[in-house]
Amino acid sequence: MKQILLLGAGRSSGSLVHYLLQKSGEKNFRLKIGDKNPLLAEEKIKGHPNGISFAFDVEQDGQRAEVIGQADLVISMLPPALHFLVAKDCLRFRKNLVTASYVSKEIQSLHEEAQRQGLLFLNECGLDPGIDHMSAMDLILRLKNSGAELTAFRSYTGGLVAPESNDNPWGYKFTWNPRNVILAGQGTARYIQNGRYHYLPYPRLFSESVRINVEGLGRFDGYANRDSLAYRHHYGLDNIPTLIRGTLRQEGFCSAWQVFVTLGLTDDSFQVENSATMTYRQLVEAFLPPTVLGSDLEEKLAHFCRIDPEGPAMERIRSTGILDEKMIGLQEASPAGILQHLLESKWKLNEGDKDMIVMQHQLQYKIGGVEKQVFSSLVVKGEDRIHTAMAKTVGLPLGIAALKILEGQISLRGVQLPIHEEIFTPILAELEEYGIRFVETMA
Amino acid sequence: MKQILLLGAGRSSGSLVHYLLQKSGEKNFRLKIGDKNPLLAEEKIKGHPNGISFAFDVEQDGQRAEVIGQADLVISMLPPALHFLVAKDCLRFRKNLVTASYVSKEIQSLHEEAQRQGLLFLNECGLDPGIDHMSAMDLILRLKNSGAELTAFRSYTGGLVAPESNDNPWGYKFTWNPRNVILAGQGTARYIQNGRYHYLPYPRLFSESVRINVEGLGRFDGYANRDSLAYRHHYGLDNIPTLIRGTLRQEGFCSAWQVFVTLGLTDDSFQVENSATMTYRQLVEAFLPPTVLGSDLEEKLAHFCRIDPEGPAMERIRSTGILDEKMIGLQEASPAGILQHLLESKWKLNEGDKDMIVMQHQLQYKIGGVEKQVFSSLVVKGEDRIHTAMAKTVGLPLGIAALKILEGQISLRGVQLPIHEEIFTPILAELEEYGIRFVETMA
Repeated sequence: MKQILLLGAGRSSGSLVHYLLQKSGEKNFRLKIGDKNPLLAEEKIKGHPNGISFAFDVEQDGQRAEVIGQADLVISMLPPALHFLVAKDCLRFRKNLVTASYVSKEIQSLHEEAQRQGLLFLNECGLDPGIDHMSAMDLILRLKNSGAELTAFRSYTGGLVAPESNDNPWGYKFTWNPRNVILAGQGTARYIQNGRYHYLPYPRLFSESVRINVEGLGRFDGYANRDSLAYRHHYGLDNIPTLIRGTLRQEGFCSAWQVFVTLGLTDDSFQVENSATMTYRQLVEAFLPPTVLGSDLEEKLAHFCRIDPEGPAMERIRSTGILDEKMIGLQEASPAGILQHLLESKWKLNEGDKDMIVMQHQLQYKIGGVEKQVFSSLVVKGEDRIHTAMAKTVGLPLGIAALKILEGQISLRGVQLPIHEEIFTPILAELEEYGIRFVETMA
Repeated sequence: MKQILLLGAGRSSGSLVHYLLQKSGEKNFRLKIGDKNPLLAEEKIKGHPNGISFAFDVEQDGQRAEVIGQADLVISMLPPALHFLVAKDCLRFRKNLVTASYVSKEIQSLHEEAQRQGLLFLNECGLDPGIDHMSAMDLILRLKNSGAELTAFRSYTGGLVAPESNDNPWGYKFTWNPRNVILAGQGTARYIQNGRYHYLPYPRLFSESVRINVEGLGRFDGYANRDSLAYRHHYGLDNIPTLIRGTLRQEGFCSAWQVFVTLGLTDDSFQVENSATMTYRQLVEAFLPPTVLGSDLEEKLAHFCRIDPEGPAMERIRSTGILDEKMIGLQEASPAGILQHLLESKWKLNEGDKDMIVMQHQLQYKIGGVEKQVFSSLVVKGEDRIHTAMAKTVGLPLGIAALKILEGQISLRGVQLPIHEEIFTPILAELEEYGIRFVETMA
């Protein structure tokens, strides 16, 4: 029997484990799952005979080498910074590797060595990055093959809460690592529009969001995501005048979140003195300039952040409890840590809550001298707070890719993204069986 | 003969080397100066018989250990991140150490071990930090000894250009590491005012500057500097309701610099694509939102940054050349790297130019039920572009401290700042001989 090694059994791994175990009989393999907390793995295996859980500490070189040496293929769902340790052992023991994370410079540096050894290190193979790349490439190639010249590519993805489970004015609940949500966007976003570079620094990222319409769901905010420039080459669109990748939030989210950014509450670089005995309201006061005008904190905040004191952004801010006279109760926390702590209690996916993934590609192209436009949209709703759409859309492409590689159906080698037909065509086809299906509308 | 080892012979070390060599005969020591570029050391020694230069690479463990092992005292003027390597060897070979840099967590962690070994690691002993601490403590102790209760401490320091050498609308030329000037203020400034904490994130640091008046010189901008909170304890002012430390710039500098910050041009975290063949004007365009209104770039910029298109901030921006249709010519540079490259050509200290150090402490206190105020100000002008006020005010306190320690006149041990009477009293007295003298005005 072959063996797949999965490292990391957190929030997003449920659907992946379920998929792999379901296929393990027919495909004749065992799934070994290591996590710092082996109970997390155990819960997901649910006694399936082909599943094995174990306590795994990635920092222990001996154990890491041992388990990777025994595997036929490795899937790493560890935090991105830890993939490099795993990848180096994969080189050493000649194992293929699959991750859902962005390719770091470190991982990219292993490309030639992996190629030389005949190995495939497939990354960015979850939802975003992952399904976004696959579905975009599928559409781009179909258009190109029909003789179209692409003039604009815009793509937005969001992990949201389904409208029927939405009970807060942000339209947002945590379906993945809350810390990453709080820190999202830090750095400078880069994209190209009408042939010009655009650089958008974090302090004004959320104030420059755009409106995105998704049929049947209404309007969303879209904000630019990281470095879109690199994808011109990956997508074979080197000379396209417009290319933007972004993140979707419910309409109004971005202008309210900008208030936290402007205040400085998403800063994770220092500890707030006496944070345990301070109130949330005092924290907000400490981030407002002492000279700002207003009769009370709400008025000062509205004035300083240029929002309507009675408007929806203020209602969103108020709903988080950040203006309450309530003790923070967290020792030596950063502003971002305090905000996360507060929002984790407010934006929690409850029993029975459904999350929702929304993705939309907007392509413009010329064909026979005519300007055309196609929108390709994906909406996936979760079943409940365990079987989330997030876990499904991250886990299934990872699992499908892993089995294709295990069975030797992929010929590509080196450090790769799922932008090649031999990878994305079978994955997209199988995803449709699970209800992950894009709808195209022409304009 | 004893030996002082000086590591680093850059811009600010001229006055230090001059002072030490001048004292080397009387005090019977040699000064050995190591730098990556030994010519920099040679130029400063100017053939003095007690000076020795050598090529020094701090990363070479063997050489570092050898030269530290041979010294009687070490002065590190290396970049702050490298002090720790030096300090560990100072512990190993039991040598005292002096630096002009802020105490890092790493250096602080050596406190007990240094104490145990009877060593003094004296830091923050240049200008700012350095003379600011010493003169502040001197004033604070005199006020306390006279029965005063301190209610506010504000202190601002700036390394500027002397009015007679000022030929650009910023009133600024580089007198120390230009990179540090471009990146100055990144992080979140922290201070306390009227008993309340204030946190001021970098993106709005320069928009919240205050006006500082210095008699005979006029008005300046002051912006908050790093973490002032820690100095409440250092200065023995644990319960003082207001404590702010800041940086001085010529009036109007801050609102113009805020334009660069708002655009994102001080970001050093990524490389601008095709920076070599882009013009400065195109770079500014790339950082403006595509939706901003205006008939040309200047109008868009003014509108977006809320400045008067014909006002002094715009004049300052224009004077840098950042709006010119001129090729940047720097390969794969960060925005901050590009801005530095441009400003280094514009803000250069010319032959004969004089720089100027301005420092002002503003103390409020109560004595006999009466509210009083004292301002203590220092103005030091440089002689020319080599013998700068910056080099003098950084180098002399370092040199004076080093000799006091070498001669065994300081009993303090461990990782320390110059906030103790036995250190600052003799140093301030000797600084007066060199024209570094505070003027106090009561209000």
